[in-house]
Amino acid sequence: MDNRPIGVFDSGLGGLTAVREILRILPDEQIIYFGDTGRVPYGSRSRNIIIQYSRQDAAFLMSKHVKAIVSACGTASSVAGALLAKELSVPFTGVLEPTAQAAAKATRNGRIGVIATDATIRSGSFQQALQTISKKLQVFAKSCPLFVPIVESGFMLDHPDITKEIAETYLAPLREAQVDTVILGCTHYPILKRIIGEVVGESVRLIDSGRETAAYCRTLLKKNHLLAENSSGGCSFYVSDRIDDFSRIAGIFLREDVHGSVQLVDIDKYEGAN
Amino acid sequence: MDNRPIGVFDSGLGGLTAVREILRILPDEQIIYFGDTGRVPYGSRSRNIIIQYSRQDAAFLMSKHVKAIVSACGTASSVAGALLAKELSVPFTGVLEPTAQAAAKATRNGRIGVIATDATIRSGSFQQALQTISKKLQVFAKSCPLFVPIVESGFMLDHPDITKEIAETYLAPLREAQVDTVILGCTHYPILKRIIGEVVGESVRLIDSGRETAAYCRTLLKKNHLLAENSSGGCSFYVSDRIDDFSRIAGIFLREDVHGSVQLVDIDKYEGAN
Repeated sequence: MDNRPIGVFDSGLGGLTAVREILRILPDEQIIYFGDTGRVPYGSRSRNIIIQYSRQDAAFLMSKHVKAIVSACGTASSVAGALLAKELSVPFTGVLEPTAQAAAKATRNGRIGVIATDATIRSGSFQQALQTISKKLQVFAKSCPLFVPIVESGFMLDHPDITKEIAETYLAPLREAQVDTVILGCTHYPILKRIIGEVVGESVRLIDSGRETAAYCRTLLKKNHLLAENSSGGCSFYVSDRIDDFSRIAGIFLREDVHGSVQLVDIDKYEGAN
Repeated sequence: MDNRPIGVFDSGLGGLTAVREILRILPDEQIIYFGDTGRVPYGSRSRNIIIQYSRQDAAFLMSKHVKAIVSACGTASSVAGALLAKELSVPFTGVLEPTAQAAAKATRNGRIGVIATDATIRSGSFQQALQTISKKLQVFAKSCPLFVPIVESGFMLDHPDITKEIAETYLAPLREAQVDTVILGCTHYPILKRIIGEVVGESVRLIDSGRETAAYCRTLLKKNHLLAENSSGGCSFYVSDRIDDFSRIAGIFLREDVHGSVQLVDIDKYEGAN
């Protein structure tokens, strides 16, 4: 039993979809969330910069006395995940392995689709994680560059028909490839789950990286006897630059009212996590 | 006569649309372009950070012995433009005033539309620049958050019909407001000029901020006797973080092949411009 908080970081606010899943299955847990809004997006940065940023994010969370760290950021998980798992004195998980494991378990025909941002697809990290599990898996990857701005601007709420048309153009190659499982490889995509599901069809299983990572986080805490007990749960938010409309955007991801509790962090003050 | 280069900076690569216009009307000029790809986008940053970044961008260009500096970035122009104009020892222009002046001159009914990123629209900078010219101007502003990713991912090339549908939803309020002039208030939007023109109708005048800023730059150089003569012209590119597909993205904005000549800059080394 351990009532210290869980630390979750992401390059922005999309990681809040993972927070929602953690709070759903582990309602007793306290969460410290750090969104690196001052340096988002990570996807277009170089390898060394991503490692530096990830270490600083983890160092900030360690300063808040967390008992475990979750990287909800696909880019940070793939570039710095192995390093952080080795360097940190608390259990760590990224989003890649839990998601790839769930997809490999779900597929019946061995044909898995991956949709994510352009940077994540080009990095090949999901593809590689699936191939590591089994060489027999066939992976079909497609970047969907409009999905993040569609979610952040709320376009899907006012224009569900155009959003569906866009989803149809993006997902056509995966349908042609007859995948039976699709990984939602970006924190923002669960918000479009219903539309994506309609386009790929009911029989295709959608794997939500936030949900799978939350489930793996529970396993990890349990194994290490770190689950909280009789605690009130809840979440504190930290960001590295002012977000004018934090409540609005956070509300999209958390599907509940968020106010007041966000604080600004000077992330440059934090050096490599240990 | 002065054959030193002109310095142009932007938060990313969109400013290359302004470079294209400068090279078109001033083919003798050498251009040093700095795209702050390591810290893009500026729009979501706080005021102090934007001022710090803009000063560093100008300081880097000054280190290249430029004879004038153009900020092609709407955010930097509105937040740090007046400051840089005062601090720098060479002539400076942002995109706001030249664009607002051109729109005020073009309108017949005094009803002007402004389209730009969400951050630029929320800052109210174009609206303010127009109101400064004349209190009689009526300004109708609309953010178009999907336009930048549409351009950067090349979506408009493969899916012109869906792109037009999106443009129709964004531009409907401006049509209803019966504007006769629309400011393309983001460096990326000239790439969508044909589609935007079709949606708003032939009679509506589109004001391209890159083109107007280039024209103003020519006036500025002429006034200060700084125009180049008998020089070969051309452009050198600098960025603050690796761009995997610099050639592809730069090609979209410059409409010509770009290769080899891009160099990486450690922008943190440069302190406030003087």
